[in-house]
Amino acid sequence: MTVRLTGRLAQRGDVALGDQCPVDRTVQLVGNRTSLLLLREVFYGTSRFDALVKRVGVTEAVAAQRLRQLVDMGVLAKEPYREPGQRTRHAYVLTDAGHELLPVIMALLQWGAAHSPGRAPAVTHAECGEPVQVELRCAAGHAVAEDDVLIGSAR
Amino acid sequence: MTVRLTGRLAQRGDVALGDQCPVDRTVQLVGNRTSLLLLREVFYGTSRFDALVKRVGVTEAVAAQRLRQLVDMGVLAKEPYREPGQRTRHAYVLTDAGHELLPVIMALLQWGAAHSPGRAPAVTHAECGEPVQVELRCAAGHAVAEDDVLIGSAR
Repeated sequence: MTVRLTGRLAQRGDVALGDQCPVDRTVQLVGNRTSLLLLREVFYGTSRFDALVKRVGVTEAVAAQRLRQLVDMGVLAKEPYREPGQRTRHAYVLTDAGHELLPVIMALLQWGAAHSPGRAPAVTHAECGEPVQVELRCAAGHAVAEDDVLIGSAR
Repeated sequence: MTVRLTGRLAQRGDVALGDQCPVDRTVQLVGNRTSLLLLREVFYGTSRFDALVKRVGVTEAVAAQRLRQLVDMGVLAKEPYREPGQRTRHAYVLTDAGHELLPVIMALLQWGAAHSPGRAPAVTHAECGEPVQVELRCAAGHAVAEDDVLIGSAR
């Protein structure tokens, strides 16, 4: 009733994977509350520093530090903009690698909506109105159950 | 190029969502490195405390604290077992709510495999051998692009 391991992973013994594991690498890069909530807001269309600070509910210093990391990681890009009579400011937008974090954010949303007490927004497909789910599918189009997930040798 | 918001979320202004957001609630519960790596290991079939400690690479005290939280949250269940001549020990297994965190772990794996330097295991469908992906699909079976995700009023 768990995923199935093959190859080197199956035989590894009691060894920590550390940076050899892409789960851990992602967690080390974005696995903190502020970074994940900043990403949520950027996915929700917020881009300006001041709005990000308020909508995430952290201090400017913390937001600035995490945004810098997300830019350095190549997840966000910083774009200058200028309103009449104001100094140049920066907006934050998702890069291609950043957009690919959507399944992480949606998987967190889906679990929290189902298993933590409190409000949850409806997530639907704009085109047909049906509810949207994060799921595991193979390239042949099959929905993949947990015990049919084979995690194999490092490539 | 982002998800689309409707209703209360679209009109919220510069307000932090905090515990009203299920992304944040999930992050507050499992959004730390040790908890996520413990879950990875349990999904990989590890259940015993000693093996979890070694495979995650943390101290016993830290592992014990995080495992207790995961049990309290209803994500893991603790099962006693006893080997001949040994005292009773505990194994940790996923509850139904715990199994539903698989998309979170797989989404972290998928992103890290694509976007962080280092090894990455192949993830395939045991039945057909095709690569497995975490995707957004609606109940009508459509693959859902980011800008067709509609996140609506709290329900």
